[in-house]
Amino acid sequence: MESITVYDIAREANVSVATVSRVLNDTAPVRTSTRLKIMAIIEKHKFQPNALARSLVNKKTGMIGVLFPDSTNMFFPEVFGGAERAAQKLGYTLFLCNTFSNCSRESEYLNSLCERQVEGLIFMGGRINAQHCPDALVQEVVDIQKKIPIVLINGSLPGHPCYRVKTDEYLGTQLIMQHLIDRGHRSIGFLGGTAETTTTLEKLQAYKRTLSANNLSYRKEWVRLGDFSMSCGSTLMQQLLTLPNRPTAVICINDYVAIGAMKAAISQGMHIPEDIAVAGFDDTQLASAMNPELTTVSQHSEQLGRQAVSILSQLIQKEKVKKLTVLEPKLIVRQSTQ
Amino acid sequence: MESITVYDIAREANVSVATVSRVLNDTAPVRTSTRLKIMAIIEKHKFQPNALARSLVNKKTGMIGVLFPDSTNMFFPEVFGGAERAAQKLGYTLFLCNTFSNCSRESEYLNSLCERQVEGLIFMGGRINAQHCPDALVQEVVDIQKKIPIVLINGSLPGHPCYRVKTDEYLGTQLIMQHLIDRGHRSIGFLGGTAETTTTLEKLQAYKRTLSANNLSYRKEWVRLGDFSMSCGSTLMQQLLTLPNRPTAVICINDYVAIGAMKAAISQGMHIPEDIAVAGFDDTQLASAMNPELTTVSQHSEQLGRQAVSILSQLIQKEKVKKLTVLEPKLIVRQSTQ
Repeated sequence: MESITVYDIAREANVSVATVSRVLNDTAPVRTSTRLKIMAIIEKHKFQPNALARSLVNKKTGMIGVLFPDSTNMFFPEVFGGAERAAQKLGYTLFLCNTFSNCSRESEYLNSLCERQVEGLIFMGGRINAQHCPDALVQEVVDIQKKIPIVLINGSLPGHPCYRVKTDEYLGTQLIMQHLIDRGHRSIGFLGGTAETTTTLEKLQAYKRTLSANNLSYRKEWVRLGDFSMSCGSTLMQQLLTLPNRPTAVICINDYVAIGAMKAAISQGMHIPEDIAVAGFDDTQLASAMNPELTTVSQHSEQLGRQAVSILSQLIQKEKVKKLTVLEPKLIVRQSTQ
Repeated sequence: MESITVYDIAREANVSVATVSRVLNDTAPVRTSTRLKIMAIIEKHKFQPNALARSLVNKKTGMIGVLFPDSTNMFFPEVFGGAERAAQKLGYTLFLCNTFSNCSRESEYLNSLCERQVEGLIFMGGRINAQHCPDALVQEVVDIQKKIPIVLINGSLPGHPCYRVKTDEYLGTQLIMQHLIDRGHRSIGFLGGTAETTTTLEKLQAYKRTLSANNLSYRKEWVRLGDFSMSCGSTLMQQLLTLPNRPTAVICINDYVAIGAMKAAISQGMHIPEDIAVAGFDDTQLASAMNPELTTVSQHSEQLGRQAVSILSQLIQKEKVKKLTVLEPKLIVRQSTQ
């Protein structure tokens, strides 16, 4: 296929490049006979208007950048799936960037996405969940926000107003704690999550307060942090099972940690929930596939993604949007706790 | 942050736009004093060169498009993870497009990626795995291939030469069949996959031939196709368990179908592998998290992604590359079959 440019079309039609551009971008009226002549040449050469060149003219790229912490934890692809469906309806293309929650990768991608003139950004994970985020990293996002609308999912930039969509993870943790307490559990552990992450701290606070509100004692040795992986869940459960005095139930930072924890308990011959009840968080599609099926909290992952795109699109259209959108979590009771 | 352009810099430095462009893109020598003057202005205004404009000049966008069938089957994010790590090392940015294996979405994205002048494309799923792919859809990819290098992962365009990376799924199926036969199984079923997909047909052929080579009978009622999901695996296993004469082992099209199948068997009070052995395919991170742990075949998902990017980068550099790269699958024996 030959490659032809607006210059070639202008030459062949004997008009200026500006006229061809007006026809392509529909930015100003062009005499019908001229328009038809140009259209015929475009058709003849199967000319594909160059989106890059067109972006420079009308300043619209139709692109939204998505910073994404981890494509192997199903929760995030589920959020992304929701975002994608919404974006497609609105005519945007999502540009997904896997940051592995690494701050320098985030900076690289932020830079690269701004250079490519995305019309908006969705930010998940990494610095927006860091308990002590260095000022320079916060400032980087704040500066970009002055030029391009940004929506944060389940995170924040302390001290700076920004547009956010989140599930109430504090409430979600309360729901699951209350469920376990209602089932008669008096000794409940907490597994997983990194100590520097706001999500972990929020859930931990809800855990402690619910214990206290129910006159249940908080025991340091029953709270074991680590990360967000299955292997972490296994390791932490193994540690817990060596204690002379162990809890009868554990809540986990997410479904992955819960799956690892269940596996470790089962491999030591324990029965779930009879010997120890286990609960997850997120309600990824894995939760219901487990044996036993996992009790968990739905964050409405798809809806988080859809909402983020919808808010971003309103911001791009310069509409007024409220800063914070909170989704209510939902307790999903399955076999692992009853 | 003020937004300034190459025109502003040229005016302030009292040089032509072409000179500024030469400094930015390092395309031709510029007198040192002029270069330093321009650099100082760039620095002063914190000018961010516009990647779109730069792309138009040097014809390089640094972008690779990835057509991706399903971000909720962990196999694909694992392939993508490998591709991403390789791309980052080579200085490319991946542009991920979720097609849900829908051919019209594929066409939309192909069009949109070409307009954005990606330097190469990686194609997974959808039409490149269709048994009877309409000519127009094949031709669309063939036409693009004339302009932009494309690498297909685990697929092909029948009748047209193209660059491909694949795992030998035929051999993988033979390995898992032989393992079951070696463990004494004489009646083996096959679950999952859509009938129109080349992956399914390739595995099915390996299944039939291995049965025949071992003088084992092929029974139509033990082969149940559907799709690639956990819920499909559950449904098919339930059907299998109602047969008066059922197999002692099943191989599944992927880990997801196997997980669903195990779950259905367990919920009917069966023990795995004592009552029925179950094997998966792909060795996603879920396989080892299951209870019992799942025997499966590793496709070296990360390596598939890495190889695809490496081949694409060689093609972009106009290097000579062999058309087909085949990775050898690896049998991973775990508890679900022994």
